[in-house]
Amino acid sequence: MQTIAQSERKVIVFAGLRNAGKSSVMNAVAGQEASIVSPFAGTTTDPVRKAMELASYGPVLLTDTAGLDDEGAVGNLRVSTAQRMLLQADLIVYIIDGSAGYQETDSANLKLIKQSNTPCIGILNKADLPFAPKSAAPFIEHQISYISYSSINGDKNGLVHFIGANLPAESSETLLGGMLHRGDIVIMVVPIDLGAPKGRLIKPQVYAIRESLDGDAIVIVCKDKELRSVISRLNEPPKLIITDSQAVMRVLPDVPKGTQLTTFSILSARFKGDLAVMVDGLKVIPELEDGDTILIAEACTHHEGADDIGRVKIPRWLANFTKKDLKFEFSRGNDFPDTVSQYKLIIHCGACMLTQKAMHNRLRITALTGTPLVNYGVLISYLQGAMPSVIEPFPEAILAWNELPEAAVY
Amino acid sequence: MQTIAQSERKVIVFAGLRNAGKSSVMNAVAGQEASIVSPFAGTTTDPVRKAMELASYGPVLLTDTAGLDDEGAVGNLRVSTAQRMLLQADLIVYIIDGSAGYQETDSANLKLIKQSNTPCIGILNKADLPFAPKSAAPFIEHQISYISYSSINGDKNGLVHFIGANLPAESSETLLGGMLHRGDIVIMVVPIDLGAPKGRLIKPQVYAIRESLDGDAIVIVCKDKELRSVISRLNEPPKLIITDSQAVMRVLPDVPKGTQLTTFSILSARFKGDLAVMVDGLKVIPELEDGDTILIAEACTHHEGADDIGRVKIPRWLANFTKKDLKFEFSRGNDFPDTVSQYKLIIHCGACMLTQKAMHNRLRITALTGTPLVNYGVLISYLQGAMPSVIEPFPEAILAWNELPEAAVY
Repeated sequence: MQTIAQSERKVIVFAGLRNAGKSSVMNAVAGQEASIVSPFAGTTTDPVRKAMELASYGPVLLTDTAGLDDEGAVGNLRVSTAQRMLLQADLIVYIIDGSAGYQETDSANLKLIKQSNTPCIGILNKADLPFAPKSAAPFIEHQISYISYSSINGDKNGLVHFIGANLPAESSETLLGGMLHRGDIVIMVVPIDLGAPKGRLIKPQVYAIRESLDGDAIVIVCKDKELRSVISRLNEPPKLIITDSQAVMRVLPDVPKGTQLTTFSILSARFKGDLAVMVDGLKVIPELEDGDTILIAEACTHHEGADDIGRVKIPRWLANFTKKDLKFEFSRGNDFPDTVSQYKLIIHCGACMLTQKAMHNRLRITALTGTPLVNYGVLISYLQGAMPSVIEPFPEAILAWNELPEAAVY
Repeated sequence: MQTIAQSERKVIVFAGLRNAGKSSVMNAVAGQEASIVSPFAGTTTDPVRKAMELASYGPVLLTDTAGLDDEGAVGNLRVSTAQRMLLQADLIVYIIDGSAGYQETDSANLKLIKQSNTPCIGILNKADLPFAPKSAAPFIEHQISYISYSSINGDKNGLVHFIGANLPAESSETLLGGMLHRGDIVIMVVPIDLGAPKGRLIKPQVYAIRESLDGDAIVIVCKDKELRSVISRLNEPPKLIITDSQAVMRVLPDVPKGTQLTTFSILSARFKGDLAVMVDGLKVIPELEDGDTILIAEACTHHEGADDIGRVKIPRWLANFTKKDLKFEFSRGNDFPDTVSQYKLIIHCGACMLTQKAMHNRLRITALTGTPLVNYGVLISYLQGAMPSVIEPFPEAILAWNELPEAAVY
């Protein structure tokens, strides 16, 4: 029997109020296919999860949830365990009992789901009974595709294909996604400072080199102080320069006309997170006040040097820039708070140790409360005055920059 | 209390015949320093090992051995457990009971130790008693430095300093050791074939890039098919080209005059093993006969593809080159046979997963029986006709090449 890692399975979460019929819908999907390949590891006694192959749509993990009654009340900003499970879904199947009609809680739940940008489809269940008036209203209000269904006489095959067709596609994005073509020269500026790990390169550097080679591009790697020499020894300007964020102001004057510039962190923001959201997050900086609390979230647990970037440098730079007396809290590794509304700003590391999906889950949590999130590199480039030069290759980020309030643009 | 990893401790092995006084010498060394920093992990009940700080010479692990009586008889090519422990020493302290005189076995043991190139010093023990005639003869015969000593009235301090001063220095070698200087351009040719790990670079490539940056050199990374384009776009020829072994014949025609060429494997052979020994190992290739057995030793346990370099390609290439019906055996991971005399040749991987010391231990085992050992890259360059071009940067390897029998040089 082939073993499929949990991370390769798309997570489908069945959600709704207590009597909406979540379990019967999930069982219809699970029973549709005889090929349940394996009970999900560790959950054989747990009836609410089923790992299976969903028709031609690939491996999935079906997850039933406790009822979401009274959970999503507007204004309740704490993310409950059930809601957190929702945010980890690749697809939420939200079920409303059409015969009973919708509740206000349904509408609040769907608002929350939409705010978090989690993909969601709807099932108007119990179609064998007469539907109550306007029972699909919350789906319509939040622009959620839905079908009606009955576990008594419904089309199970149609249900499976409705769900399968709405599963999000595999992300095909990469760090450099589409920036380089065959024969292009890219210069990567890698200052070797005290924080650099001994004897090796950090992950985004290795990935960027490998991706460039995969695309038949030519990679030049040098320290910042060699950049001018490198450019003078080439017959033509490079297509792109990627620099470590901390060297960006030393690199900027040496960038030839026509050469694009960006940073490893900005590539990570785009690949792992959402660059436009992070550029938008900069809007809060001119509004920061004495006593505001800022969360610095670092996903890896490296040993902290005396001049650690997250613990020491960023708080210092931000305090210098804003001239405010700011409070900093720190989260490390897999810890990320359920509640982020108390923070005026979240400053996240480059997320090289997080999967794209894990970073997206964090962005969903911040999106729920509208809490601004930037990453180290976006912030550092901003504080150093290197915006918008380093985001010029990315139109969606330039759009976000142009929409920042005047006070935030220098 | 500071914890020191086993691998950072230099291993001092006290060896000799059963009544030579090994334990009393070791105890004199151990007792000399009150600062026994920690019992060696897992060996607190094992009286034959002591981890300690040896005066100003750093952390060591003292190891007593069972007597080596009758172990090293000439012609007995099997490496016993006790002998294997010897080969893992950073320094062997070989003890002869001067009052009893030496045995033939002492001479045989020391011959074995010298053959394996393991550093060794001698103690002529029991100096409080009258020495038997010629008791130091085996030390003199094998050019081993020695002192006389007595655990009754000897100079313990002198003993400690004799041992400490003979500990081998930390290896300061690196992959590129001394090949590059500030501003030099090095081109690394990295063909991305089916065997390349997905999305990343292999260790020697990452290390070579990082070392070059540490030395303020400029690194260009490209596929082999881009090499000509890269060189044409530079104002000056590069100082050095390092290629993957398998691309060496495609790279060779594009190397500008005055540019040095080598391969990642040859750098590994030099860094982790002994390049001259491996070049010398090529001498056996024209002598291979039908039915000869060859060991292919791979230190990592990667998944084997259909065209695996160690399992498939190298046996095929060698059979084609020699036109002989050769037998191949395989060892993987940490397995390496105690007995290698049955092999006509050992072909070792690049050893990126082995420490320098572990690779040296393997070379000691092969040196004992004079079994030729080459690594993948040295062999591939040879079979492809790229010798001696790729070893030209290394005088000691060129010397070994020039001393190969005529039949081995093409």
